[in-house]
Amino acid sequence: MSTLTAHRSGPEQTEPVTVGRRERKKQATRAALSEAAPRLSLEHGVENVTVEQIADAADVSLRTFFNYFSSKEEAVVAGDAVRGEMLVDEFRSRPPSESVLTALEAAVVVFVDDLVGSGRREQMRMMRSSTALLPHQLAAYAASERALGVAVAERVGEVVPDDVDDEDRRVGLYPALVAATTMAGMRVAVQRWTDGGTEDLEALYGVIGEVFERLGRGL
Amino acid sequence: MSTLTAHRSGPEQTEPVTVGRRERKKQATRAALSEAAPRLSLEHGVENVTVEQIADAADVSLRTFFNYFSSKEEAVVAGDAVRGEMLVDEFRSRPPSESVLTALEAAVVVFVDDLVGSGRREQMRMMRSSTALLPHQLAAYAASERALGVAVAERVGEVVPDDVDDEDRRVGLYPALVAATTMAGMRVAVQRWTDGGTEDLEALYGVIGEVFERLGRGL
Repeated sequence: MSTLTAHRSGPEQTEPVTVGRRERKKQATRAALSEAAPRLSLEHGVENVTVEQIADAADVSLRTFFNYFSSKEEAVVAGDAVRGEMLVDEFRSRPPSESVLTALEAAVVVFVDDLVGSGRREQMRMMRSSTALLPHQLAAYAASERALGVAVAERVGEVVPDDVDDEDRRVGLYPALVAATTMAGMRVAVQRWTDGGTEDLEALYGVIGEVFERLGRGL
Repeated sequence: MSTLTAHRSGPEQTEPVTVGRRERKKQATRAALSEAAPRLSLEHGVENVTVEQIADAADVSLRTFFNYFSSKEEAVVAGDAVRGEMLVDEFRSRPPSESVLTALEAAVVVFVDDLVGSGRREQMRMMRSSTALLPHQLAAYAASERALGVAVAERVGEVVPDDVDDEDRRVGLYPALVAATTMAGMRVAVQRWTDGGTEDLEALYGVIGEVFERLGRGL
């Protein structure tokens, strides 16, 4: 409603409001595409779904679709990228008194809550079994790992230059290793749950606990 | 020479010899394509190289190229897949008296020897910086990780059904976690060397040692 009001105030409206409204509209469009793409892929098979169908379902043009994603596959796995950002944000918000691994485990649990919360297990299975999607999922994971490495470096007091993209930030061995192994452990835990015969969430949290316990204790 | 002799013995030759010769010819073709693809990509930029150029360099037809690889990108990163198989073979060949982590570290060192042995650092940098190649590299890593998980499971005495593809073999949490975190740690070590300012191999082996020490001790 506030966005409509802002719109009605005409082209003289202040810059921040315009940016805010545009940004919200962009986020809503991205969310609609990111929701439609895996849903339609599960329904029809990812190889049968077209970019046109995804754009139609989100009520945008083909051209608009390509403003957000470079391919159908990227749209289907977009949720992974968003959850990766959420994981990093959650880790950063943990109390400084917590150890790195404790803070990471708490962030992973929040990540997984979102991942499994809405009956997305069938979608995850579909994604796992698609050779076309796997590389895109892995690319999203790699981006999350880089961002997490930067967050861990900052938490342990490493100075990381913030005038470059996450992609180019170099972090020390410990942050890089912790980020990589934590993401790997989380992926292993989630995959076991996705592939398993039961929807039992307690079992998933149990496996996550065991993964962090082993990482903390040594392999 | 023995293959030529076998050839001259005519179509009545025994089946194994024929298979052996064909298999060797296929391996040679694959190796030639896998060598030409990253070399030409480094020379001209991966986005400028065509499948035709790669096929020409390996002296095969376009059609033959597509018998081996489904895309240019797959051919450029093919070495990663081969080295992944080598890593698993090396791990399997380690004495049973060695702990899992010790055997893995020894296998990783052999893997890295091959990776860095022939001035391939520039090629690795090129691959790392290409968004088109990254997903394919990650897919090769994922395949190696699955195969390594099966090898670790067998080493620790887990019974893994061998009548299914590696892809479908389920292993316990420990083998899956060890394979995932070891591959992650190796990737971190190699990337630091690839991105670093020095060709110093001793430094790379030092980082690998530190990675395994930390994985063994706990993070």
